[in-house]
Amino acid sequence: MIGDGMGVSQIYAGMVGNFGSLHLEQFPVIGFHKNQASNAFVTDSAAGATAFSCGVKTYNGAIGVDANGEAVPTILEIAEQNGLATGLVATCSITHATPASFISHQASRSLDENIALDFLNTDIEVFIGGGRKFFANRSDGLNLVDSLKNRSYQIANTIEEVQQIKSGKLAAFLAEEQQTKFSEGRGDELVKSTEVALNLLKTNKKGMFLMIEGSQIDWGGHANNTKYIVDEMIDFDNAIGKVLEFAKKDGNTLVIITADHETGGFSINKGDTKTGMVEGKFTTGSHTGVMIPVFAYGPGSEKFAGFYENNEIFHKMMNAFRFK
Amino acid sequence: MIGDGMGVSQIYAGMVGNFGSLHLEQFPVIGFHKNQASNAFVTDSAAGATAFSCGVKTYNGAIGVDANGEAVPTILEIAEQNGLATGLVATCSITHATPASFISHQASRSLDENIALDFLNTDIEVFIGGGRKFFANRSDGLNLVDSLKNRSYQIANTIEEVQQIKSGKLAAFLAEEQQTKFSEGRGDELVKSTEVALNLLKTNKKGMFLMIEGSQIDWGGHANNTKYIVDEMIDFDNAIGKVLEFAKKDGNTLVIITADHETGGFSINKGDTKTGMVEGKFTTGSHTGVMIPVFAYGPGSEKFAGFYENNEIFHKMMNAFRFK
Repeated sequence: MIGDGMGVSQIYAGMVGNFGSLHLEQFPVIGFHKNQASNAFVTDSAAGATAFSCGVKTYNGAIGVDANGEAVPTILEIAEQNGLATGLVATCSITHATPASFISHQASRSLDENIALDFLNTDIEVFIGGGRKFFANRSDGLNLVDSLKNRSYQIANTIEEVQQIKSGKLAAFLAEEQQTKFSEGRGDELVKSTEVALNLLKTNKKGMFLMIEGSQIDWGGHANNTKYIVDEMIDFDNAIGKVLEFAKKDGNTLVIITADHETGGFSINKGDTKTGMVEGKFTTGSHTGVMIPVFAYGPGSEKFAGFYENNEIFHKMMNAFRFK
Repeated sequence: MIGDGMGVSQIYAGMVGNFGSLHLEQFPVIGFHKNQASNAFVTDSAAGATAFSCGVKTYNGAIGVDANGEAVPTILEIAEQNGLATGLVATCSITHATPASFISHQASRSLDENIALDFLNTDIEVFIGGGRKFFANRSDGLNLVDSLKNRSYQIANTIEEVQQIKSGKLAAFLAEEQQTKFSEGRGDELVKSTEVALNLLKTNKKGMFLMIEGSQIDWGGHANNTKYIVDEMIDFDNAIGKVLEFAKKDGNTLVIITADHETGGFSINKGDTKTGMVEGKFTTGSHTGVMIPVFAYGPGSEKFAGFYENNEIFHKMMNAFRFK
């Protein structure tokens, strides 16, 4: 699970805003990753997610390709090849940098329509996010929603439709492009989507790979908007709570929580855990380079302790899955 | 070991400034502590250190007393009562808030002369820091240096004199009040002091309690001076390296690294691990409220994983020592 732009201050802001605690605190293993891109001290979400998904350091903007622009298999593709069920859930366009890096191979994150086409190259069981227009209303005239239906995907366009899906494959488009903020209508769609994805994927006896992104923590940082960060952080943490509940019951699920990078140079200058008040300040509207915490729960979690480069997370996951 | 004002960004600044790595990275167990004071969301060093030393949440400014102003036994005093050797090493006046909170009980951190008197109430084996004037040139006319000599302390006034002490008790005053910066003459006195303290304390078969503070990371934050932070962070990390070397050889030493709070709302906006360049920015000249990482190595280190209040560190140490 990736909280985009979620540094230590973003987590603590959520904790204070949530009156002093988060589900995240139940994670017993903590590490830190260093997240330089191959061509920059400060990473973007594309290079950051590709490090996790493919195990390579690459350039900012790269989607599932290495520093030379060569496609590299993603952990999701490898999970598919090994017969596991796979899924992607995000609170942004499903073609946006973070989810895209797990399923697509493109030279640039801006190629949303190309990224949408790449969703047809794997047999991913579930994806839920925004970005309908990159599938249904394309400059090349293709209708990828029809193609998805031909491949047995059930299509959902609202969270209510998502919640009606009890089995089979699901492609859900909850916005034409980006979803709204939690506070401006999206509400708890991430939590509900997480529950549906877990229920659909858990029937595969070989297991699952599911990436869930709290996408808009980053956007709160870019906007230098503390309330936006706090709302999105608590929403993401509620999804963490659902996954943790599942993993505790299941007993054989490894859950990893981290971020690609910090956004905003955010600090917590005042606060009150009794009222949930958080007063944050920012040093930038961009990303910063600070190391990022990693939280792990479940079998294999101990491998995520200590310090390491962001791309080692891929290798640790490969190892935990016993993929070769 | 306490890096005063050492949040995650300060650590990462040191790492980048040190060309990409720190001794600290060898610590296998990581946790986070929440550090609100009893009367404030953002703690100062006195309440922060008293949480560690006494296990209580107290008010800002409090030295070894609880929120009602009552003296509470410190971990150093309890270690002494249990027959262990004890020591304090700092790069500030030894009467300053952090070291003071381990040996003194005063209503306010500003009472340096009272704090100096409290050093005579325990049988601490080694202390090395600044603050000579609070012992030797006091408003009450007492000469505490004479008192220390009467109690068999060897007195050192330079780092060279410190290094000549091979056994027995040591009181070292490396400045009249505060030491200089690392970059303005202090140099590697912390590392050398750490080595001497370890050598003097290790002869006690019951073990030791030693608190070592990298005091001026905090002052770099207050000054909004990135180079100051980087220099002091690397110096502190070099002391960590010496302690880790000792602990690895010894095999029965628990090492805990943390900070009281973050200072400066510091972020890492640019950097280069090849050249050691770090460009930081700040949101304040004061402390911030963010949670603080804890790093542990050695027997009992696993208890320092996860999330907890800062005062729980006292109880975890008590437990590791098997003190009652």
